[in-house]
Amino acid sequence: MVGHENEHRLGWLGTGRMGVEMARRLLGAGCDLAVYNRSSAKAEPLVRLGAKPVSTAAELAVRDIVFITVGSSDDLIRAVLGRDGLMSGPNGAAPRVLVDCSTVSTEASARIRAEIADRGTALLAAPVMGNPKVVRAGKMTAAVSGPRDAFVMAEPYLTMLGRGVTYVGEGEVARTVKLCHNLFLGVVAQSLAEITVLAEKSGISRQAFLACLNQSVMGSLFTGYKTPAYVNLDFEPTFTATLLRKDFDLGLAAAREHEVPMPVAAIVHQLIQGLVGRGYGDADFAALLQQQAESAGLALVSEHAEVPDGLDVTE
Amino acid sequence: MVGHENEHRLGWLGTGRMGVEMARRLLGAGCDLAVYNRSSAKAEPLVRLGAKPVSTAAELAVRDIVFITVGSSDDLIRAVLGRDGLMSGPNGAAPRVLVDCSTVSTEASARIRAEIADRGTALLAAPVMGNPKVVRAGKMTAAVSGPRDAFVMAEPYLTMLGRGVTYVGEGEVARTVKLCHNLFLGVVAQSLAEITVLAEKSGISRQAFLACLNQSVMGSLFTGYKTPAYVNLDFEPTFTATLLRKDFDLGLAAAREHEVPMPVAAIVHQLIQGLVGRGYGDADFAALLQQQAESAGLALVSEHAEVPDGLDVTE
Amino acid sequence: MVGHENEHRLGWLGTGRMGVEMARRLLGAGCDLAVYNRSSAKAEPLVRLGAKPVSTAAELAVRDIVFITVGSSDDLIRAVLGRDGLMSGPNGAAPRVLVDCSTVSTEASARIRAEIADRGTALLAAPVMGNPKVVRAGKMTAAVSGPRDAFVMAEPYLTMLGRGVTYVGEGEVARTVKLCHNLFLGVVAQSLAEITVLAEKSGISRQAFLACLNQSVMGSLFTGYKTPAYVNLDFEPTFTATLLRKDFDLGLAAAREHEVPMPVAAIVHQLIQGLVGRGYGDADFAALLQQQAESAGLALVSEHAEVPDGLDVTE
Amino acid sequence: MVGHENEHRLGWLGTGRMGVEMARRLLGAGCDLAVYNRSSAKAEPLVRLGAKPVSTAAELAVRDIVFITVGSSDDLIRAVLGRDGLMSGPNGAAPRVLVDCSTVSTEASARIRAEIADRGTALLAAPVMGNPKVVRAGKMTAAVSGPRDAFVMAEPYLTMLGRGVTYVGEGEVARTVKLCHNLFLGVVAQSLAEITVLAEKSGISRQAFLACLNQSVMGSLFTGYKTPAYVNLDFEPTFTATLLRKDFDLGLAAAREHEVPMPVAAIVHQLIQGLVGRGYGDADFAALLQQQAESAGLALVSEHAEVPDGLDVTE
Repeated sequence: MVGHENEHRLGWLGTGRMGVEMARRLLGAGCDLAVYNRSSAKAEPLVRLGAKPVSTAAELAVRDIVFITVGSSDDLIRAVLGRDGLMSGPNGAAPRVLVDCSTVSTEASARIRAEIADRGTALLAAPVMGNPKVVRAGKMTAAVSGPRDAFVMAEPYLTMLGRGVTYVGEGEVARTVKLCHNLFLGVVAQSLAEITVLAEKSGISRQAFLACLNQSVMGSLFTGYKTPAYVNLDFEPTFTATLLRKDFDLGLAAAREHEVPMPVAAIVHQLIQGLVGRGYGDADFAALLQQQAESAGLALVSEHAEVPDGLDVTE
Repeated sequence: MVGHENEHRLGWLGTGRMGVEMARRLLGAGCDLAVYNRSSAKAEPLVRLGAKPVSTAAELAVRDIVFITVGSSDDLIRAVLGRDGLMSGPNGAAPRVLVDCSTVSTEASARIRAEIADRGTALLAAPVMGNPKVVRAGKMTAAVSGPRDAFVMAEPYLTMLGRGVTYVGEGEVARTVKLCHNLFLGVVAQSLAEITVLAEKSGISRQAFLACLNQSVMGSLFTGYKTPAYVNLDFEPTFTATLLRKDFDLGLAAAREHEVPMPVAAIVHQLIQGLVGRGYGDADFAALLQQQAESAGLALVSEHAEVPDGLDVTE
Repeated sequence: MVGHENEHRLGWLGTGRMGVEMARRLLGAGCDLAVYNRSSAKAEPLVRLGAKPVSTAAELAVRDIVFITVGSSDDLIRAVLGRDGLMSGPNGAAPRVLVDCSTVSTEASARIRAEIADRGTALLAAPVMGNPKVVRAGKMTAAVSGPRDAFVMAEPYLTMLGRGVTYVGEGEVARTVKLCHNLFLGVVAQSLAEITVLAEKSGISRQAFLACLNQSVMGSLFTGYKTPAYVNLDFEPTFTATLLRKDFDLGLAAAREHEVPMPVAAIVHQLIQGLVGRGYGDADFAALLQQQAESAGLALVSEHAEVPDGLDVTE
Repeated sequence: MVGHENEHRLGWLGTGRMGVEMARRLLGAGCDLAVYNRSSAKAEPLVRLGAKPVSTAAELAVRDIVFITVGSSDDLIRAVLGRDGLMSGPNGAAPRVLVDCSTVSTEASARIRAEIADRGTALLAAPVMGNPKVVRAGKMTAAVSGPRDAFVMAEPYLTMLGRGVTYVGEGEVARTVKLCHNLFLGVVAQSLAEITVLAEKSGISRQAFLACLNQSVMGSLFTGYKTPAYVNLDFEPTFTATLLRKDFDLGLAAAREHEVPMPVAAIVHQLIQGLVGRGYGDADFAALLQQQAESAGLALVSEHAEVPDGLDVTE
């Protein structure tokens, strides 16, 4: 990335768990980065790494490219369009490109795209695939949609964030890609629960079974990093059942809008609903394994095994 | 593997498409290998690479370890226990270990295990995950079950076959692992069909969508090597819908025996049945995409794109 | 009903196919009934039976109880709250009770309930179970919700409409009962399709099979009156697949709101979506049989049989 | 039935709960009936009503038509073909027609049909729809298959058993009709559980909801007689979850054999499996309501309501 790092002045809006990990990578690559977070304490680790702190979102308006990671559609609208928001900068200053890496609704995304266009600012929808640990391991990816020239400008920095990004088209289509990804993730998690319980009731340890599966052509980073949860029954949330249900709500709504039947995703949606109903809403969605075992009459116990998650940072 | 390659005298029984690719790897590693196939022409490529041809299965009885890849349970029983079969060798000669890499029933496997034990021969059930192209790319894996000492003896050669094997326990349990693997494969293929059609109806090319997914944490060798079929609608069979249905029959029967509900696998079983009923029985199971598109009112056309399958042999 | 028929002055707003059949029953019982329909021609049959035609909805305001059957939530709001609508009557005149027998959203229902309360008018939500032919056969039923005293006042007339009505509680809950009813109807139709195709492929005529089922403890008026469609493949719509999909949309949205997993209804929702996708959207939902047969590789032909539908009017 | 009751001499083999209720109806119609049961005490009530007790199945061989109700395929084979069985009568005596009203496998049925044909005896497969209480209420039905002339001979007596029987064809096809019936029953029970829980969480009592549904076009004898269980949570078994699972095993096996996809029945099969896995195997299958409520986060309590089951004997 030599030569790129000083070309553009970058900003980061929202330094929660995901944002911190992602921004850290830009700093590691030598980028010029200003950061803003509502509660400034959360931006501290980045400031120690060389980021410039600013005290309002509006102060990021003078940056060329601003990345955003916030928690919800409403947060995004407030941070960008609200009072003291990013687009309220002095003298009509505005970034050339916003790169929104949050998971927000298509409607919120389209609204912001329209409103900032008047100021000459382009929006890239760039929802991220992966959790903070995946980002830290350098294995994050993103789907990106919006004006192609904006993508070309931002691509070098997006590439620094992980294993690479894919431009999927104009407008908000990257939002749909993210929803598809998460539908797939839920289906895979449930299928994994089914076969893992079958293997265990057949006399195979979860550790041996999942080791074999991970090594096979079916293994993915995802099946790998969920393996410790399935083997040792660690349902400490990385992504709660309730949040996954929300993504299934949105994904199936998109499918309905486009008139696409989704028999498997629909049944998994109901199983996740059942998981929430049985009291696992705040647990990690890996608790699908627990639900599956209960309905198979199997009492799970942790195998207390050392299992790799495939996300060790090797530097 | 220096030092190993001459330790044991190996045999290979059944050199169909899978067998040829697997045996080729042993020869490439310098092993001493005798080969037998009912139709000897199919063994020719291996003979050219240094394998010793024999004219009956019985002649393999003098080998230490014999690998088997045949088409069905009946073929296996005939090849091992039948007239002129492997166990009919002269003077009571018999291999110390049989490694059966075929996909056969648990019953056939258990029967052979019992009958050859009398002759002092151990059976390793070692069903393979991957198709011939996967083997050629060096990415095959296998679950292995049977006596642990037999596994220790065979492991160096099993390791030569691909990316490694996993010992999963005594008896026939590796058969169940294979069934679980194939249930998972079917579920993943159907979910992939659902989300790919949703992405396409949302305005994203299948190529861009699957590139993004393959790069993400959800990407696997499998999603990679099915991508050309999904993008270019190549349903030339690597594994037919009818064969996948058979594995679902067996997998769901195992689940029923062990009293494990499989809501997602069960619905996919019915969708595969529908695929067969609609006339796609002899097509590759990737035709699940076609069925899914039809029920979404979408007319698929090939994207005629150059897409990598992730299985290029890099030597 | 002696003694009742002249107690209250009744009105009917909206005399489409359902409304005509229902209102006809009140006239048959000797009620004093005024009728209004946007296109007055449709009210003619009722006028010939003694109904008093009026030329605006507002003129119905002087009636004690007004029944409504319109096509959609918007139609209902316009007819009741719009210019020249029912509540725009002269001198603040307003009926004491509105009985809405349409299938409308809970939101529309609640809005009207609130707005007419100011004028002292109570709303009964009374969605009807059954199609026009069911009404004509005297077998219609309804769930009713709203103020109990309004129900007591309207009950004698509601009872005249068919086989009886059930008071299910306050507010809009009758709307939910109707949605539940239609979810059940869709599930039953799909299950009927599955078993009818299984019976036929086993060598049993659809006529014999359904005759047997209808006579059994599982038989209902519904299974009876769909039998001619299933036997003779008459998919002339009584209720289209697209309309049934809409009711599943609403029913599953209600289930989601109340956090109730619906595994079977959800899969039927997707099958109905597939039916629409395959081009049967404007056919009767009985085309589920056709879809089921296609996925079973069975070419259906009409059995050209005389089959009763259980709805003959016997007077 | 004047004139019929003395035409043929009848026998009844197996007087368990179903058999007693059915045979009682023949006696009530004045038929000449001999009865046999392994444990003779169970036949006592019938003897008090005029039945002639015999002490071996073989003694029934002199009767013209013998009805059978036993518990399993093995019981049937033993009772008919075993030592001292029905076909071991003296001097080659054998009934002209056996009417088997049990639920047995197609294979057992076909075997008996073949073996008794040599003795000139015809078999009618006549599996019964309904439980003992349904029989007592006079509402039992049956599908009948076998030689048509045998059916013509037995029909008057079959008709006495309940609401009528349906001839569905040659051979064992009536067995398939019974399986289809029970698949339908399971699907309806699950769908009823889903919508009843939705109604309750929406604020409607189960009693009011089911009263409304039973009265509607969707109501059946079945939905009626399960209503007390759903309202008052009485899961005292009439038919256990484990037995229903067995019928689903057989029904889905028949569907697989005939290559008929059954998406809804398959998902219900898995839900019943889950019910068994969660410990409700010996409860009535109405416990599907309990499972559904648990996954909806709803704690059910009995409504302690007086609800009719529609099976009162009105004599």
